[in-house]
Amino acid sequence: MSHVTDPADGAGRPPPTTGRDGPDDPARTTGARRILAVRGTAADERRDILAGEEPMAIRAAGPGQEPVDVAITMRTPGEDAELAIGFLYTEGLIAPGDVESVEVGDPAAIAHPDDEVLVRLRVPFDASTIAARNFVATASCGICGKASLDSVALRCPRVAPGPTVTRSALIGLPDALRAGQAVFDRTGGLHAAGLFEPDGRLVRVAEDVGRHNALDKLVGASLLAGDLPLAGRVVLVSGRLAFEIVAKAGAAGAPFLAAVGAPTDLAADAAERLGMTLVGFLRGDGFNVYAGPERIDLAR
Amino acid sequence: MSHVTDPADGAGRPPPTTGRDGPDDPARTTGARRILAVRGTAADERRDILAGEEPMAIRAAGPGQEPVDVAITMRTPGEDAELAIGFLYTEGLIAPGDVESVEVGDPAAIAHPDDEVLVRLRVPFDASTIAARNFVATASCGICGKASLDSVALRCPRVAPGPTVTRSALIGLPDALRAGQAVFDRTGGLHAAGLFEPDGRLVRVAEDVGRHNALDKLVGASLLAGDLPLAGRVVLVSGRLAFEIVAKAGAAGAPFLAAVGAPTDLAADAAERLGMTLVGFLRGDGFNVYAGPERIDLAR
Repeated sequence: MSHVTDPADGAGRPPPTTGRDGPDDPARTTGARRILAVRGTAADERRDILAGEEPMAIRAAGPGQEPVDVAITMRTPGEDAELAIGFLYTEGLIAPGDVESVEVGDPAAIAHPDDEVLVRLRVPFDASTIAARNFVATASCGICGKASLDSVALRCPRVAPGPTVTRSALIGLPDALRAGQAVFDRTGGLHAAGLFEPDGRLVRVAEDVGRHNALDKLVGASLLAGDLPLAGRVVLVSGRLAFEIVAKAGAAGAPFLAAVGAPTDLAADAAERLGMTLVGFLRGDGFNVYAGPERIDLAR
Repeated sequence: MSHVTDPADGAGRPPPTTGRDGPDDPARTTGARRILAVRGTAADERRDILAGEEPMAIRAAGPGQEPVDVAITMRTPGEDAELAIGFLYTEGLIAPGDVESVEVGDPAAIAHPDDEVLVRLRVPFDASTIAARNFVATASCGICGKASLDSVALRCPRVAPGPTVTRSALIGLPDALRAGQAVFDRTGGLHAAGLFEPDGRLVRVAEDVGRHNALDKLVGASLLAGDLPLAGRVVLVSGRLAFEIVAKAGAAGAPFLAAVGAPTDLAADAAERLGMTLVGFLRGDGFNVYAGPERIDLAR
């Protein structure tokens, strides 16, 4: 099915819809959604395949030891044992010969039992090395809480209605973001997050080697400027849209989140739950809408 | 200065050199290095500006409370107060009106006192909310240990000598990586990490929504295959090269790390310290060499 949603064409066609489209693939490496694909002045509803994203707990135990929670990471399902072992090894927590066996899945977990991986070791696991390390929280909206392994529940409130953003304003945002980036031009190496008025004017921009940091800087500057929540404005990020970016934007009350790159399925689900408009692949004269198409005026 | 380093030209020119080039800018948002820029068969030494990357500690305290370490993040210096406040807010740890003042810098720190930010709050800070959260370690090689805020010291041993990789094999790697990505073709949304023989043959590939996870999966699969350390082979990652990617590759003994994107200054410094070859901007028929040019045969 393909139809232009421009109300000016007077065809009385239904408004575009977005959302999950059928069950995930069994391995959950991808998820299918209905999206609105805009290219130039044409807008087509179609089925799209998104990269999968889910939390996974990494646990470790030596002989006779109780399993220790080492980390929870947001990952694309698949090669879960490899991820757990690789993480423990590259973080210096185990040696190659230490691995006795790997148990993927907690039989007690109802929803996704394979979201827990327990690495059993031939040698005692020194949990104090974890406690002594420094950690970075990635638990926006509490999503990575232990309970969320069974039920992904968001604690952020739904975002406010509005604003309406025209197609032409939207496709102009990436150039405006790039123009506002001070360091990128010299290095080609930084992520950026920008806050825009609905008409496309740049309010402020932040840069960082990390996607999350760029958005945190933007939100922090907005807080100091008395600009929270980010209602009525548009946030654009330079990279891909993982769940945490949506969660952080949602925590700041951003109703409209766009990205140059692709979203994950969990990012699209989270945006839908928050009532947020989510735009990806914003490049050239086109973009894809994964949630909240009602905030986009395709006719202008 | 510009010279071709092809030994076949018989000009007896000096071998290319890479390394830091002059002091950082005072704000440390960027760092300057000597690099080898290869475009087609031409190779020029030149000065290049890299995005800055340094660890920063985020701390918080309510009235009369001792400051609590909340997180340490690898970030690009600049807007440090905004980053700290934005992080605390988007992680749900503070409300907009909670901020009393922000102290950037620990006077007791000798090297980079601005790598600590203390956010003082008008309300008590509930440290138990941090302990109850789930965290992800980002402390490869111990770099993010508290002490590393004063002295960035790597604990990984230097990588082994070799292999030699030809220019033509190197520029063929991105296409081979893409061809090996199963999910990307469908979603456009995943990072990849690939392990290659020096002649360009793909050994294995891993994909994930996260750069670190893709590399961890690759290393974990290599461990299970008895392929560690990764001596004599090449690792290619699809995204940017932050410090942690170098540190994780170094932990796995990878002597040759290439990326489609840009490296940070700390990533280049770490590669140099580890004796690793670091290649960035590997696109089309060219690439930049940030460390270890001796492993690249530019004549073939």
